[in-house]
Amino acid sequence: MNLEQIIQATKEQMPLSRWEHTLRVRDTAMALAEGESVDLQKVELAAILHDYCKFWPAEKLMAQIKENNLPEELLLYNKELWHGPVGAEIARKEWAIEDEDILNAIRYHTTGRPGMSPLEKIIFLADYIEPGRQFPGIDKVRQMAKTNMDQALLQSLDNTITFLIEKRQKVYPLTLITRNYYLEQVMLQERS
Amino acid sequence: MNLEQIIQATKEQMPLSRWEHTLRVRDTAMALAEGESVDLQKVELAAILHDYCKFWPAEKLMAQIKENNLPEELLLYNKELWHGPVGAEIARKEWAIEDEDILNAIRYHTTGRPGMSPLEKIIFLADYIEPGRQFPGIDKVRQMAKTNMDQALLQSLDNTITFLIEKRQKVYPLTLITRNYYLEQVMLQERS
Repeated sequence: MNLEQIIQATKEQMPLSRWEHTLRVRDTAMALAEGESVDLQKVELAAILHDYCKFWPAEKLMAQIKENNLPEELLLYNKELWHGPVGAEIARKEWAIEDEDILNAIRYHTTGRPGMSPLEKIIFLADYIEPGRQFPGIDKVRQMAKTNMDQALLQSLDNTITFLIEKRQKVYPLTLITRNYYLEQVMLQERS
Repeated sequence: MNLEQIIQATKEQMPLSRWEHTLRVRDTAMALAEGESVDLQKVELAAILHDYCKFWPAEKLMAQIKENNLPEELLLYNKELWHGPVGAEIARKEWAIEDEDILNAIRYHTTGRPGMSPLEKIIFLADYIEPGRQFPGIDKVRQMAKTNMDQALLQSLDNTITFLIEKRQKVYPLTLITRNYYLEQVMLQERS
């Protein structure tokens, strides 16, 4: 596996604007990684690959979900949720990435999951707060991410659930389960 | 089973203010039942019994959850969620109520569930909109309940989830799953 090859191939999977987002996620992730016990090469690789399948046609993503025995429940929810789990499978198959931490960072970058590793948190948050993102409350999450990633995760998940309710869209149960988990983590930290 | 006995016993389980709430839920439920294909005696019985265990001590509710093999996951969430499932078991054991529709109306009156029966919807909504309830948006739900119970369920579940997020409380996954289900129902109705 050669990083330059992966970068070229990833760029070809998406429009330029999304590739620019990917580069901002990489830069944001590298900044968040400072002071964390995490391998910077893994951060870069996961960031580059996180949206690999984002612009694949729905039919191709559906076929991959079935072929790889991913949770078929995904098909009942917004297709925005499909490219993470599929992306992890493709990273393994096409790019021979075996590191489960990198694969999980790609797999869970949209929903999160309880008990995320530092790498998973960094990719999730970098995707949410990279400088191209503009929406109410984003600066609060940017500040939190610098000092307490769990608090930033809770705030971003709360924002996402509230946003989806306002937009009359379904909320994937794992998103809520992750939010409940980080609420508990943050409250435990506050008590200690 | 004698209704008068059940009424007396229920009254003894709770403070007077909650008994008055119970009577308002009964009256609201009877009004909502008009024009629905539902047995009014079942509506009355489910309404009277819905909060039977609401003021039982947490330890007694926990013991019942274990003894009756109810989902132990409940214990990880707000204890407000415990009295419905326990109440259904007590209604069966102490009052020999075997009608699954009545038991489900008691069991799911706090969380709801996908595919609720008319009786279950009536008890859930009556509990939410009875005239003693006062909070922003309640009149909108009262209006909806008269014309489209699914829409009223969706709105009340959206309100509940948003309220719990604002209050930094955990949201029980079934509440979200029920909300997603009724969002889908309402959108299907709008399309047809």
